[in-house]
Amino acid sequence: MPHTIAFLLFDGAEELDFIGPWEMFTLAGELRPGDVRCYTASETGAVVTCAKGLRVLPDCTFDDAPAADVVIIPGGIGTRRERDNPAMLAAIERLRRGAAVTASVCTGALVLERAGLLDGRRAVTHRVGLPILARNPRVTLVEGARYVDEGDIVTAAGVSAGIDMALHLIRRLWDEELARAVRDAAEYYPEPWG
Amino acid sequence: MPHTIAFLLFDGAEELDFIGPWEMFTLAGELRPGDVRCYTASETGAVVTCAKGLRVLPDCTFDDAPAADVVIIPGGIGTRRERDNPAMLAAIERLRRGAAVTASVCTGALVLERAGLLDGRRAVTHRVGLPILARNPRVTLVEGARYVDEGDIVTAAGVSAGIDMALHLIRRLWDEELARAVRDAAEYYPEPWG
Repeated sequence: MPHTIAFLLFDGAEELDFIGPWEMFTLAGELRPGDVRCYTASETGAVVTCAKGLRVLPDCTFDDAPAADVVIIPGGIGTRRERDNPAMLAAIERLRRGAAVTASVCTGALVLERAGLLDGRRAVTHRVGLPILARNPRVTLVEGARYVDEGDIVTAAGVSAGIDMALHLIRRLWDEELARAVRDAAEYYPEPWG
Repeated sequence: MPHTIAFLLFDGAEELDFIGPWEMFTLAGELRPGDVRCYTASETGAVVTCAKGLRVLPDCTFDDAPAADVVIIPGGIGTRRERDNPAMLAAIERLRRGAAVTASVCTGALVLERAGLLDGRRAVTHRVGLPILARNPRVTLVEGARYVDEGDIVTAAGVSAGIDMALHLIRRLWDEELARAVRDAAEYYPEPWG
């Protein structure tokens, strides 16, 4: 059975937040054909306008979204609305019950927090989200972490950190060999300038 | 006057190849409002299905694509077709004449090579593209480079290397302060696993 990875999109989702992990998981699927299936879903299925203007046509609606092993919620300015969107919270609640991992990237953690999924957990988010999460005394912030793995809940720091989180999850859910092969296929030997 | 960054898309374009630079340049525009405008273009303007299945609705067609300061050609399996697509080669030829930089990420270099833009130049590409570029004796391969800056032509290594190339171009075209601010906003302090 393939592992299914669901990406929950919305207007104002930050592009790299979800496409970083998307690239890592889909590369895993290319390297192990039949092992990984990735899809994008949004509330209505209509074209989503991302935080920086990229327009993405999702594969399905939240209602049609198939069961997934990993559910990924990106960050972006749209999270300030989506954390109070009953359709988003219902989609997360339904999908997470059958998932091994529910994961956020960047300020996607603000949505997980509002869904109650960070209660009693360690978590991280983009620096702009830290003061917001800090208002919830039931969440233990891990400032400076690239990602925080709490088993069924995993949170990543901002934007590019989703790439590192995805490689970690590939190692955890599959194996070290596949994670290394994905890193090599993505030529992820970064040299961040400065 | 804002700097305009054009992203030339096609079926089979590799997602992270263009979204990595897209995120860096659009973050620059957010940090310096009015300074950067980014757009996506494709031959027909219809929804593009990327190499790993993401569906992107471009902003315009090649014919409608406005003049740009930086033109970015991503890689992906679709480059094997696009390097012989007259519409793609014509779009590159028209746009590059007004551009300060024409840049490829990953196997996008195969398209630049076929367009004659790498003749007499140093260049890099994804490891799978190296043997193809090596057939052209007029191109000097720089294996192992993250990106190669030849002034008006810049090539990056595979997939994730476009992020590093974009930060380099932001530093070059604007200034060090903005490149550092973009890196910080993207929280690009990578910890590639392994």
